[in-house]
Amino acid sequence: MRIVDRVHPLRPEPAAVAVTRHAPTPVPATIRDRFPALADPAVVYLDSAATTQKPDTVIAAVTAYHREHTANAGRGSYGWSTALTARIAAIRTRAAGFLGAQYPDEIVFTSGATAALGTIAHSWGLATLEEGDEILYNPADHAANVLSWHHLRDTMARFGRRIVLRPYRSTAAGEADIDDILAQVGPRTRLITTSHLHHVYGGLTTLEELRGRIDPEILLCFDCSQSGGHLPVDVIDLGADFAVFAGHKMFGAPGIGLLYCRRRVHDRLRPFLPGGHSGIRVGEDGLVGSGMPQLLEGGTQNIPGILSLAPAFDLLDELDPTAVAAHNRELTLRLIEGLRPIPGLDFLPGPAHARCAVGYGIVSFTLDGISAADLGFVLAESGFLVRTGAHCVPSADPDAGSVRVSTHLYNTLDEIDRFVACVAGIAGHR
Amino acid sequence: MRIVDRVHPLRPEPAAVAVTRHAPTPVPATIRDRFPALADPAVVYLDSAATTQKPDTVIAAVTAYHREHTANAGRGSYGWSTALTARIAAIRTRAAGFLGAQYPDEIVFTSGATAALGTIAHSWGLATLEEGDEILYNPADHAANVLSWHHLRDTMARFGRRIVLRPYRSTAAGEADIDDILAQVGPRTRLITTSHLHHVYGGLTTLEELRGRIDPEILLCFDCSQSGGHLPVDVIDLGADFAVFAGHKMFGAPGIGLLYCRRRVHDRLRPFLPGGHSGIRVGEDGLVGSGMPQLLEGGTQNIPGILSLAPAFDLLDELDPTAVAAHNRELTLRLIEGLRPIPGLDFLPGPAHARCAVGYGIVSFTLDGISAADLGFVLAESGFLVRTGAHCVPSADPDAGSVRVSTHLYNTLDEIDRFVACVAGIAGHR
Repeated sequence: MRIVDRVHPLRPEPAAVAVTRHAPTPVPATIRDRFPALADPAVVYLDSAATTQKPDTVIAAVTAYHREHTANAGRGSYGWSTALTARIAAIRTRAAGFLGAQYPDEIVFTSGATAALGTIAHSWGLATLEEGDEILYNPADHAANVLSWHHLRDTMARFGRRIVLRPYRSTAAGEADIDDILAQVGPRTRLITTSHLHHVYGGLTTLEELRGRIDPEILLCFDCSQSGGHLPVDVIDLGADFAVFAGHKMFGAPGIGLLYCRRRVHDRLRPFLPGGHSGIRVGEDGLVGSGMPQLLEGGTQNIPGILSLAPAFDLLDELDPTAVAAHNRELTLRLIEGLRPIPGLDFLPGPAHARCAVGYGIVSFTLDGISAADLGFVLAESGFLVRTGAHCVPSADPDAGSVRVSTHLYNTLDEIDRFVACVAGIAGHR
Repeated sequence: MRIVDRVHPLRPEPAAVAVTRHAPTPVPATIRDRFPALADPAVVYLDSAATTQKPDTVIAAVTAYHREHTANAGRGSYGWSTALTARIAAIRTRAAGFLGAQYPDEIVFTSGATAALGTIAHSWGLATLEEGDEILYNPADHAANVLSWHHLRDTMARFGRRIVLRPYRSTAAGEADIDDILAQVGPRTRLITTSHLHHVYGGLTTLEELRGRIDPEILLCFDCSQSGGHLPVDVIDLGADFAVFAGHKMFGAPGIGLLYCRRRVHDRLRPFLPGGHSGIRVGEDGLVGSGMPQLLEGGTQNIPGILSLAPAFDLLDELDPTAVAAHNRELTLRLIEGLRPIPGLDFLPGPAHARCAVGYGIVSFTLDGISAADLGFVLAESGFLVRTGAHCVPSADPDAGSVRVSTHLYNTLDEIDRFVACVAGIAGHR
């Protein structure tokens, strides 16, 4: 990720951010007190890539919505509703600034990252792709970034229209293999999709090496489900046309996602899941949309989910996203350093496997002679909550599970050391 | 709605329910104390058709999820996650019983009623409809039950496949015009969709008059967004193949909906928005689904939203859905009786307009000489929160707004009387 030195009109105090990026104030250990679910010191939560714990302010925002002025947004003319409408508009602007988008109308609230990827497939793909058009994707990515495109291909095939999905490889560092992508890009390539931060390998892919080497008309799509809240994500810096984020993986509530759609694609989008308040009407020749983002936001939304994003952004801004990234890097490197000497322990692709001195809070491994499920069970018994299995990779061998450890700002070096000691102990007793 | 005397395997104590239906215990006035947002007696909330207020138990369930054991469901092997997975399965079974479904796998959790209707259009419609197939719909229904089908038609048209949407009329009582439906049903009719309880007119449509008079292969779809939680809805009694419900309109959190898909349609459904944990894999000839309901449930769901449904069902069962319906009927009749003598007041279609002695908690009207927006503003100033405008009806004249009053179990006859007096006062000062 390059250091950003552009001025974002929607980002407050860009100068201050630029300064703190060089020497961020470390994440204070007391931050953990803000997460009520982590009050029990015997529990070591190392599954933030599945969902993050919620800070007190997020909990309070959701509770306040239900307790105080429950209303629907954009619909009533009374204060409860109009105030809510204004708050949601402000959060959209805030989200745009947080992600580095230029305009609030580039931000769509969805029901999650999966729905956001499906929205791209339907609203853009189904509306614009022609026979023979190609999408490049990583079959080792999360199911949402694989199945959405296969679903699109199936849908078009039902109508006799054939699009081509070209799988590309991952590197040993768990990143997209840029050389393989370049070898596969052709005149019919319409979209290249990738995870920004891989959900199992923990490798970071920015596609910046493609710049100037591929047709700039080819659209780029980033699944930022794991990077959002972990790293200072900047959609313009990424050159993203589409980017998706999961609210519940960045301290917000489940059931809310963010879809970034760059303005240059807006005139190619069709409505998706139209409903009340989507500004869509029935015209002579079919549905007529009123513009973004309403075009993709029919129906009552997850209002408390949207409201939960504001305190989540507050927390991240307060700590500084660069400091959060540095904290996760420190935890990750300590984890890798601790696990590496354990006999029979093999890292999956990723920074550990490739021996890169980087780390983004995700490390996956296997231990010879003990299944991932058994290992996860023993770890859970000892208070370490990690994810085991195939981790939603549809191309994975279902029997070949691994253990995934994922950290976040509330984790400590002490927890990492205790976790490593526990794994070493299990390995010694095989 | 016919009185149900079948035994539902998923409904607890059907005998007790049957007994209480004949003489339900009235909804106690103290129920209002369970809704923290209604603590201020100066506020009269009459917009429950937009969203309902939340009882203390729903708020507590959502808060507890965020505060205590925040986890993702169906993914981790540790207790926080497995316990959550089991709770969600239990709520699915509970929801099936509550709606009168025979099997839990007929219940799909969606992000709302709009998404549920869109799911039907994509998963069933896009997968099965052929050139010339017909859908009968009510253009005066809520946008979600109109635009979803137009969107489907547009999508198929892009691929040169033409389906026909046949609009049918509403009656003066605000119900679907059965004679018009019967006149339009033909050999290519594949689906008839209707609102169960109309969101502006407050008329109830069960389609039971169609029974034995149309091909039983024609599928029936009910938008139960307004009836769910207001009336004892029974999907088998309705003969529904599809039915959709909005959690936030039945005391649950926003961002969660229920989609009922009768088993007889399961083999005609394709995946929709596939993602993690949807049990869907990439096969030789396209995506292969593992069965319902996972086929339609990709990605992390709105977990607190799902959890909010259990206490919402508890509340409704505790009060008895029949008693809730009787309470809304009493409020509605009192409202109609009070408003009818006001000079210049005209009812929109519905029980009031048709002078039927029924009432389901929704009454819409206009007042000669004052716009709905102005009327709504003055009412809000006096503490009465109602909905004004075109109410998400896409075919409505945008300038022809009305005031919609909608009641629920926490409203009282005194509130209705105060509201009527306020409207009468405004009418007198025109």
